[in-house]
Amino acid sequence: MSLIDLSKQVALGIDIGGTNTKFGVVNHRGEVLEKGNLRTDEYEKVEDFIDALYEQVKPLIEKYGTETNFDGIGVGAPNANYYKGTIEQAPNLPWKGLVPFSELMNAKFNLPCTITNDANAAALGEMLFGAARGMKDFIMITLGTGVGSGIISNGSLIYGHDGFAGELGHTIVKPGGRKHWSTGSEGSLEAYASATGIAITAKKMRAEFPESMLSQYPEESINSKTVHECALKGDLIAIEVFRYTGQKLGEALANFVMFSSPEAILLFGGVIKAGDFILKPAKLHMERNLLPIFRNKVKLVFSELDEADAAILGASALVWEK
Amino acid sequence: MSLIDLSKQVALGIDIGGTNTKFGVVNHRGEVLEKGNLRTDEYEKVEDFIDALYEQVKPLIEKYGTETNFDGIGVGAPNANYYKGTIEQAPNLPWKGLVPFSELMNAKFNLPCTITNDANAAALGEMLFGAARGMKDFIMITLGTGVGSGIISNGSLIYGHDGFAGELGHTIVKPGGRKHWSTGSEGSLEAYASATGIAITAKKMRAEFPESMLSQYPEESINSKTVHECALKGDLIAIEVFRYTGQKLGEALANFVMFSSPEAILLFGGVIKAGDFILKPAKLHMERNLLPIFRNKVKLVFSELDEADAAILGASALVWEK
Repeated sequence: MSLIDLSKQVALGIDIGGTNTKFGVVNHRGEVLEKGNLRTDEYEKVEDFIDALYEQVKPLIEKYGTETNFDGIGVGAPNANYYKGTIEQAPNLPWKGLVPFSELMNAKFNLPCTITNDANAAALGEMLFGAARGMKDFIMITLGTGVGSGIISNGSLIYGHDGFAGELGHTIVKPGGRKHWSTGSEGSLEAYASATGIAITAKKMRAEFPESMLSQYPEESINSKTVHECALKGDLIAIEVFRYTGQKLGEALANFVMFSSPEAILLFGGVIKAGDFILKPAKLHMERNLLPIFRNKVKLVFSELDEADAAILGASALVWEK
Repeated sequence: MSLIDLSKQVALGIDIGGTNTKFGVVNHRGEVLEKGNLRTDEYEKVEDFIDALYEQVKPLIEKYGTETNFDGIGVGAPNANYYKGTIEQAPNLPWKGLVPFSELMNAKFNLPCTITNDANAAALGEMLFGAARGMKDFIMITLGTGVGSGIISNGSLIYGHDGFAGELGHTIVKPGGRKHWSTGSEGSLEAYASATGIAITAKKMRAEFPESMLSQYPEESINSKTVHECALKGDLIAIEVFRYTGQKLGEALANFVMFSSPEAILLFGGVIKAGDFILKPAKLHMERNLLPIFRNKVKLVFSELDEADAAILGASALVWEK
C-alpha cells in the first residue's frame, strides 16, 4: 500500500488562550474529529502544561492509529513567532520571557510543531476551510477582547522580517487619542474597536447621556453585549456607541486596503455579534477614506467558521500550509 | 556556443513621468550602458509616443547586437497595473482612460514588456542594485511631488488582488486633517510629507510667524528647497516645518511597520535632501508609536541609487524579477 490515503491524514490543532487551551484532531476536509481542552492558567511552568496536554492527546493519537498518521501539530498562541517557534513576552500567558514552545512540543510529541499567533492561524483557517476559500489576498481582523489580524498576500501569510507582522490592532487610527490600557499607545485601533474599547466608549457615553437605556445597567455590566441589547431596543446612544466604533474601524480598514489591496476583509470574534450596527458605519467610513481606484471593490464579510472550532481549524491549517 | 553570457544579457528600463520619459539599457550588474529621454507630454496619442520611443531605442537595440540579447522591457509609470499591463486613469499623463500599454509595446518592439507603478519599480531597483540588496522585507517610500510606495514582503512585491497595492501616500495619518488638492481625502500622508505638502505647511507657518526667514522669499518660491535653505541658516520656523513633516511621516511609518514588519524603510526622492531635519523627527515618532516588540529594529535609510538612474534601474529590474 504505497498510496497515501488523504482521508487518514490528520493534524492536531491547538489554540492557546490566556485562560483555556482548546485542541482538536482535524482532517484535510476541515472536520474536527475530536476535541478537548485544558486550563492554560493552571500551569505555571510550560513543561507541566505540555505534559498535561500530552496526557490528554495521547489517547487520540493512539485512537487514530500510529503517530505517523499525524502530519504534525499546529499551534495558535498570543505573541507566537513563526520563524523561531517561540512564544515571546505574552502578557496574558503564565509563562514569561522567551518560551521555546515548538522545541519543547517536538521533544515531547516527536512530531513537527509549527506555531504562529492566533490571528494568523485564524486567517489560515479561513483560507483553507472558511469564507476565504480560493482567495489569495485578504485580511482577517479578529475583534475580541483585543484586536488581532492576519494578512494573506499572494496566497501566503505575511510574517515580515522577524515573524511579527500583522499587528493591525496596534496601528494608530487617531493620533493622540485614547490611551491604551496595556501598551500605553495613544489612539490605536484596539483602544476603540475591541470589546474592551467598546465598553470604554459605552461607559463614557452613558455618563454623558443619562437618558440612555445603558443607565439602567450597573457600570460593571456595560460591555458590547449589553450595548447590543440596548441598540436592538432602539436606544440611540447604544447605536451611537457602535456607529463610532464602526467609524474608527472603517477608517483603519481604508488604510489597510491601500497597503495590500485585498479582495476581502474578514471580520471575526465576539464584537461582530453587533452585526450591521458596526458593519454599516465601518463600510461607509472605509469607502469614504479610500482612493477612488479601491472603492466598491473590497468585500467586508463575517467569518464563516464556527467560533468554537475556528481556532483549532486555523492552528491545524498551519501544518498543511507549510 | 550554448553557454549564456550573462554580461551580454541586457534589459530596457523605461521610466514614464508626466513631463519626461527616461530610458536606458541596463545589464545584470545594474550598470546603465546607454541612456536617453523624450518628452511625454508632447504625444497626445500613446501610439505616437511609442513610435517616437521606438525610433530612439532602435539604434540601441541594433548596437547591442540582435534583439535576442534583450531580455525584455520594464516600465515604471504612474497608475500602472502589473497584472493587466495597463496604465489606468493616470492624472498626470496625456493618455486618458485605460491604456493597454504592455500590449502596444509588445506589438511594436516584439519584446516582452512588464509594467508597474513607478514606486514599485524603484523598490525593485533598490532590492537588486541598491540599499536593499539582500533584504526580503522592506518598504520603499518615495517623497517627491507626491508620496509613492513599493512594499517588498518575503522577497516579492505586494501587488494585491487587483495590482494596485501599496498606495501608502494616500493612507490617512490625521483623520479630518488637511484636504488633499487632488483626491479630496482628508489628512493623507501625501498631504503632509510630499514636496507639495511641505510647501503648504511652510506657507502657513510663514503667514503665522512673519519673523521667519521664509518671509524674505516671495510666496511662490516657497518649496522644500527654500525651506531647507532657511533651516540650514538656523531659522526655527523652517526647522519646525520639517519637524512637523517628519512627525507625520514617522506616525505613518509606525503603522506600516506594524503591518508588514520590514527590516528597513527606504526613503527616496527630492524631499530627503532635507536630511536629518526630517529623518530625526520621523525616526522619533515612528519609534514612539510602535509596539515594544518592533522598537529599535527597523532601519530608516536613504536610497543609495543615483536619482537620475534609479527609475531606469528599477524599471529594468522588473524584467529580471519575473
